[in-house]
Amino acid sequence: MEDKIKIGIVGYGNVGKGVRLASYQNEDMDLVAIFTRRDPNSINVDDPDVEVVHISEVESYKDIIDVMILCGGSATDLVEQGPYFAKKFNTVDSFDTHAKIPEYFVAVDKSAKEGKNTSLVSGGWDPGLFSLNRVMAEAILPKGKGYTFWGPGVSLGHSDAIRRIKGVKDAVQYTIPKKSAVNAVREGKLPEFTNMDKHIRDCYVVVEEGADKAEIEHRIKTMKNYFEGYETYVTFITEEEFEREHRGLPHGGLVIHSGVTGAKDENTSMIEYSLKLGNNAEFTACVLIAYARAVYRLNRIGIIGAKTVLDIPPAYISPKSASELRRDLL
Amino acid sequence: MEDKIKIGIVGYGNVGKGVRLASYQNEDMDLVAIFTRRDPNSINVDDPDVEVVHISEVESYKDIIDVMILCGGSATDLVEQGPYFAKKFNTVDSFDTHAKIPEYFVAVDKSAKEGKNTSLVSGGWDPGLFSLNRVMAEAILPKGKGYTFWGPGVSLGHSDAIRRIKGVKDAVQYTIPKKSAVNAVREGKLPEFTNMDKHIRDCYVVVEEGADKAEIEHRIKTMKNYFEGYETYVTFITEEEFEREHRGLPHGGLVIHSGVTGAKDENTSMIEYSLKLGNNAEFTACVLIAYARAVYRLNRIGIIGAKTVLDIPPAYISPKSASELRRDLL
Repeated sequence: MEDKIKIGIVGYGNVGKGVRLASYQNEDMDLVAIFTRRDPNSINVDDPDVEVVHISEVESYKDIIDVMILCGGSATDLVEQGPYFAKKFNTVDSFDTHAKIPEYFVAVDKSAKEGKNTSLVSGGWDPGLFSLNRVMAEAILPKGKGYTFWGPGVSLGHSDAIRRIKGVKDAVQYTIPKKSAVNAVREGKLPEFTNMDKHIRDCYVVVEEGADKAEIEHRIKTMKNYFEGYETYVTFITEEEFEREHRGLPHGGLVIHSGVTGAKDENTSMIEYSLKLGNNAEFTACVLIAYARAVYRLNRIGIIGAKTVLDIPPAYISPKSASELRRDLL
Repeated sequence: MEDKIKIGIVGYGNVGKGVRLASYQNEDMDLVAIFTRRDPNSINVDDPDVEVVHISEVESYKDIIDVMILCGGSATDLVEQGPYFAKKFNTVDSFDTHAKIPEYFVAVDKSAKEGKNTSLVSGGWDPGLFSLNRVMAEAILPKGKGYTFWGPGVSLGHSDAIRRIKGVKDAVQYTIPKKSAVNAVREGKLPEFTNMDKHIRDCYVVVEEGADKAEIEHRIKTMKNYFEGYETYVTFITEEEFEREHRGLPHGGLVIHSGVTGAKDENTSMIEYSLKLGNNAEFTACVLIAYARAVYRLNRIGIIGAKTVLDIPPAYISPKSASELRRDLL
């Protein structure tokens, strides 16, 4: 019987909360502590076995915690915290600023190697599971083309953008894959797409009393970099309906790869991976905790430095042994 | 620039032919020779650069071929060939007798280690890509349940069984997932299923002149272990229609995993992986050749013995470098 894997959480937002809940579903995991920049007394975790500790005291947990799961945001938190924690702990994070992944990887890799630690960067589902499917499908069907669709799901950035419009009280924006675009890919047509061609933007808006709805709708639909050029729908709803129907965090998407085989390219194959997530943050947390298991195991056999999901043997994320997996799931 | 990976094929049936065609789609691969138990002169490969060699001469290719792709059947060929070739070469195979995988793995592992070689066993899509998705989904959503559906696709065993009925000239049987069963899973209902509950058997039959169609249909539908208990459809067609519409080898299937997250299990997530394959053998060959790349790389860094798709970091099957993958596909 292996000892339980001792987990720490850095940052207690939606993903951090999800990691706590996910830890209960994994019997080989033991959540030890949550580290926060806030006053620890301000956080109630509903679990007497989990300590809440100020982040300044993290050093004293160096020999206690096996893997630290970094749940801060990419833009400001992780760029600092990733390299910092990798020097002291094995880490897992969901750094998702695609354009900056290469430099982030290098920074974390350097720190992790200095500390002889193992760090999984950019876990989650995109980057993460979707990346893994893009890479594998392209390798298997090289004469082909891959497509990623996002949604149906809430875009926090677009929802924020609507809320900044004068007269808007609350708003949510769902990104939805266009059925016609998905079908064109499924039919093997290998279309050329921009993100605009692939997605609909569906907005639900609560306005202040007396606000000019026509003007708000116009400002949404013509907002540069966010909505302009997109097929955009705006629906005005009451505050009650908003609270009842639009407080969830659903998300998901599709990775579809279409490729040909045969002497004359006469046979088409389609590889499709799809996620429908009731709660984006909780699902992301489930991915992170499964990869924490892999990070722990890699570190124990001396494999250190930064890794991505592309570097991890799938068996390493499962609590089952290699021989159980071969017997039951292969 | 790396040298090309030198590939050999053992057994030139549908999968072997598929591997030859797939080798042309992979620029880092060089197909050197096809090894056969038949008279090499009886095989025309349409490619002057590929040797056709009797299997008895395989020893002399020991220092020439990097990875040998074993394309024989599981029942009689691979049980012998797997351990035999693993002693002399790096190998990839698609051993698919699920119940015998554990002992086959042990036998190949022993041989491969003796020869300091690396062997990927049970590649392809099931076992193979489907296994990988079953394992990962279960690890990510442990509070959940996974389902595998096969088809729409040709079952060679069931087609054979129909052809053995008196009065049948030719026949093909398609296994088709039941829509109602797939939908029940997609709705998160976590149903309990037998294979019978999940699949329809759809048969197309050409009969001899004067054969008793009603009797043939009855014998199909009541055939024990094959059709009895299944929702089975029998359609009698002409030889011409059979040749025109039913000579292909389409296949595919779905792996769906449904799981819950949240403090009260209130959120449901669905992970779905699906394949629609124009030609089963050619697609299987594409998977095998991608994993040949991984086997070659693992062996070069000294990782020997038997492996399955569960043991292979996804990046290893891609021709791109780790940093290219991080930049372009993560």
